[in-house]
Amino acid sequence: MAKGIPTRSEDYSEWYNELVKKADLAEHSDVRGCMIIKPYGYAIWEKMQAVIDKMFKDTGHSNAYFPLLVPKSYLSKEADHVEGFAKECAVVTHYRLKNAEDGSGVVVDPEARLEEELIIRPTSETVIWSTYKNWIQSYRDLPLLINQWANVMRWEMRTRLFLRTSEFLWQEGHTAHATKAEAIDETLQMMNIYAEFAQEYMAMPVIRGVKTENERFPGALDTYSIEALMQDGKALQAGTSHFLGQNFAKAFDVKFANKEGKLEHVWGTSWGVSTRLMGALVMAHSDDQGLVLPPKLAPIQVVIIPIFKGDEQLDAISVVALKIKAALEAKGISVKFDNRDTHKPGWKFAEYELKGVPVRIAMGPRDLENGTVEVARRDTQTKEVMTMEGIDGAIHDLLDAIQTNIYQKALGFRAEKTTKVDSYDDFKKVLDGKGGFVLAHWDGTSETEEKIKQETKATIRCIPVDNEQEEGICIHSGKPSNQRVIFARAY
Amino acid sequence: MAKGIPTRSEDYSEWYNELVKKADLAEHSDVRGCMIIKPYGYAIWEKMQAVIDKMFKDTGHSNAYFPLLVPKSYLSKEADHVEGFAKECAVVTHYRLKNAEDGSGVVVDPEARLEEELIIRPTSETVIWSTYKNWIQSYRDLPLLINQWANVMRWEMRTRLFLRTSEFLWQEGHTAHATKAEAIDETLQMMNIYAEFAQEYMAMPVIRGVKTENERFPGALDTYSIEALMQDGKALQAGTSHFLGQNFAKAFDVKFANKEGKLEHVWGTSWGVSTRLMGALVMAHSDDQGLVLPPKLAPIQVVIIPIFKGDEQLDAISVVALKIKAALEAKGISVKFDNRDTHKPGWKFAEYELKGVPVRIAMGPRDLENGTVEVARRDTQTKEVMTMEGIDGAIHDLLDAIQTNIYQKALGFRAEKTTKVDSYDDFKKVLDGKGGFVLAHWDGTSETEEKIKQETKATIRCIPVDNEQEEGICIHSGKPSNQRVIFARAY
Repeated sequence: MAKGIPTRSEDYSEWYNELVKKADLAEHSDVRGCMIIKPYGYAIWEKMQAVIDKMFKDTGHSNAYFPLLVPKSYLSKEADHVEGFAKECAVVTHYRLKNAEDGSGVVVDPEARLEEELIIRPTSETVIWSTYKNWIQSYRDLPLLINQWANVMRWEMRTRLFLRTSEFLWQEGHTAHATKAEAIDETLQMMNIYAEFAQEYMAMPVIRGVKTENERFPGALDTYSIEALMQDGKALQAGTSHFLGQNFAKAFDVKFANKEGKLEHVWGTSWGVSTRLMGALVMAHSDDQGLVLPPKLAPIQVVIIPIFKGDEQLDAISVVALKIKAALEAKGISVKFDNRDTHKPGWKFAEYELKGVPVRIAMGPRDLENGTVEVARRDTQTKEVMTMEGIDGAIHDLLDAIQTNIYQKALGFRAEKTTKVDSYDDFKKVLDGKGGFVLAHWDGTSETEEKIKQETKATIRCIPVDNEQEEGICIHSGKPSNQRVIFARAY
Repeated sequence: MAKGIPTRSEDYSEWYNELVKKADLAEHSDVRGCMIIKPYGYAIWEKMQAVIDKMFKDTGHSNAYFPLLVPKSYLSKEADHVEGFAKECAVVTHYRLKNAEDGSGVVVDPEARLEEELIIRPTSETVIWSTYKNWIQSYRDLPLLINQWANVMRWEMRTRLFLRTSEFLWQEGHTAHATKAEAIDETLQMMNIYAEFAQEYMAMPVIRGVKTENERFPGALDTYSIEALMQDGKALQAGTSHFLGQNFAKAFDVKFANKEGKLEHVWGTSWGVSTRLMGALVMAHSDDQGLVLPPKLAPIQVVIIPIFKGDEQLDAISVVALKIKAALEAKGISVKFDNRDTHKPGWKFAEYELKGVPVRIAMGPRDLENGTVEVARRDTQTKEVMTMEGIDGAIHDLLDAIQTNIYQKALGFRAEKTTKVDSYDDFKKVLDGKGGFVLAHWDGTSETEEKIKQETKATIRCIPVDNEQEEGICIHSGKPSNQRVIFARAY
């Protein structure tokens, strides 16, 4: 196991916390609940952003930027929204500091009190819909398909790096449409984009589904999500897409003239993923030796480590290593040649294992003689000797194979941890035993859902899209049900 | 002139304000001093970001992310820094709202008062240096070359879109080095990167130089900047790079063990450009018809507008237009084919002129017969008929020519508006007359600089790097001087 990090079986929670810090992904700052995303962690986030941003643009969305601060009164405009969101927020009350009279530093200038307090955005629906009012007059202005990459803040008392922090980075899409059908299509499209990203790039299988009323975004008519399963058997909501109906349009009076010249309220959606995905990525794949990164999101895909004594050997190895590096880079592969003489090969091996670099190539003097290299896979921790000839093509294929393997492994894990149960006893046994997704009948009421949650800490993660219809009885109330839903304990 | 926008000669200031709004770059929000960057404006900012970010990475820098909020006490740690920065800031004092008892909305929960107030970062030196203390132990940890893309906030009473807003977007680089020489090299390198970006991409000539003590960043030993000239003869500081010496390292106790094992304070730099560049871009090149965008930063480089009556003509034109579009896109050119039938060609011509699209291609039925198109340049507002054959190569070259022409025009303007003066009377005459950069002798004292500023509103923009040495006498004090410095009224 990696130095100073407990194994997953010893303490999963601490394994995660320590791994995030030791692998240089993020750390806590002095400001309660706010994290510092370190360069290596940020490089992964940038890769995620680049892919997601392109997916948005390919589907006709544009980026824009809206203010960080929200007037307090905005939050009250949409009734459900204020219930769900307005509470745990950072509040700006003053706009100036001054020197303390005793010379001890700076103090808040009591004369610089704002007339209306400003809230650091916990999400931007209110700001954006108050803007859309001016941007939308006619059906010609629709659809309006806008996304923003931004920081947001929700004051959290119990925080965990990436998974729950007071400040986090995210994207929030906010769209406006002429018809209900179009807005629903958009909501589903974005859920599907998130699912595609999670599966194709994060190598993380997800279930697409709709949330129950209890778990819905405040102000939405429907919330769709993608749900992933972590290695400790807990679920993680990795992205959400909301059908807002006309709620925000009505709250902010956003109307358009249709083709017949009649005024109608527009239909809205919003959707987002955040730096929480970083936590999901770590928890989905990593092991007791450190991170396991899918090649498509790894900042360094291949590391080349020379095994040498003295400058002469290093020079000879470097000539060949740099050739291999260039050949790999020509195939679009990111490569680091770690020729530092301040660290031993063994130290480097452990370091890149910890950092989750998918492929390690080691080269010593004997390899040079034989025209070979030693290639190690991070995912399976297996090694093989390969000939240098055609190494670029072989590594390219290997990275594809690793990406597929990581996904398949997670898929197999999920299958193993997905259980159909037909009684409440079995339900509780599975939750306390192997954990994972539990497929069970539910009577469709918030009351039952709430009771199950209180009694077991399990929530309904979603009702899968295209869910199989099946007659049964609710595990809790015994009332009739026509489909199973997915329960799990969740992050 | 463009609709609803005064000409530059009528009212330069209003021309700018209205152009930024009418061309869909940005608008004011309901929150005092905070702007909304609209999709078209944001698309230009994204192009700027992509280029600058690559320049940073090519010189070994990594991105990271540090918290939005700064504990109030941090601001007092570096004495000069607090003097210059700690005052006009947004202050977070509470972390929770609650429902008003009278049901009128939400109010700040008085019980949720923070023990120590938090400041929305006006810049991040304090947060970052308090972090570097933990990241730097040995010379092996140096240099530390980090950049952050972020929003920052400085409470401004008089704001202008892009040029001065309370919240703005920027990048801030913060580096730590083992030696003074290396930190100075970094400071100069980043100034040069900014200059290269301004000239090669924004087509905006800049003067690189060092600031006087009066104009230095609070906490820096030296501030370098790039200075551009706007069309109204006022200067605009477009980017700054600061040599921090060991000031922040001492304030935050950041030391490293050198190769001999001796502890030393590290040397620092910081450097930034912001959405202010958007304002500079508009003011440097645009004209009474609207924006003039350099092709390298234009979100749409070429627009194709069909001239048609009825669907049959449109269909015929579309076939050819889409072929041209594909051929241009294959050359990496971004093209919009505006085939909307809701707007007339004349309206579209005016619209893309306003938006500064560098090249417009118009195609009618007669063009189809003749195998020609009409190509209009935004920069010179000239038109010519071109044959469709080889149009992709011709447009590619034309875009290069436009980029060069916009730069040359700005360079010519600056040459014309740069004046050497040798008396204070001439100095004032030039400032009140043609404006621009005024090269004059100065005695090197802050006192004289301050007097000139009070009397004329002109400031020393910089002392150019590699400035020519020349004996002379200060225009204000008559004392000896060995070089001219650049004065101007500035944004």
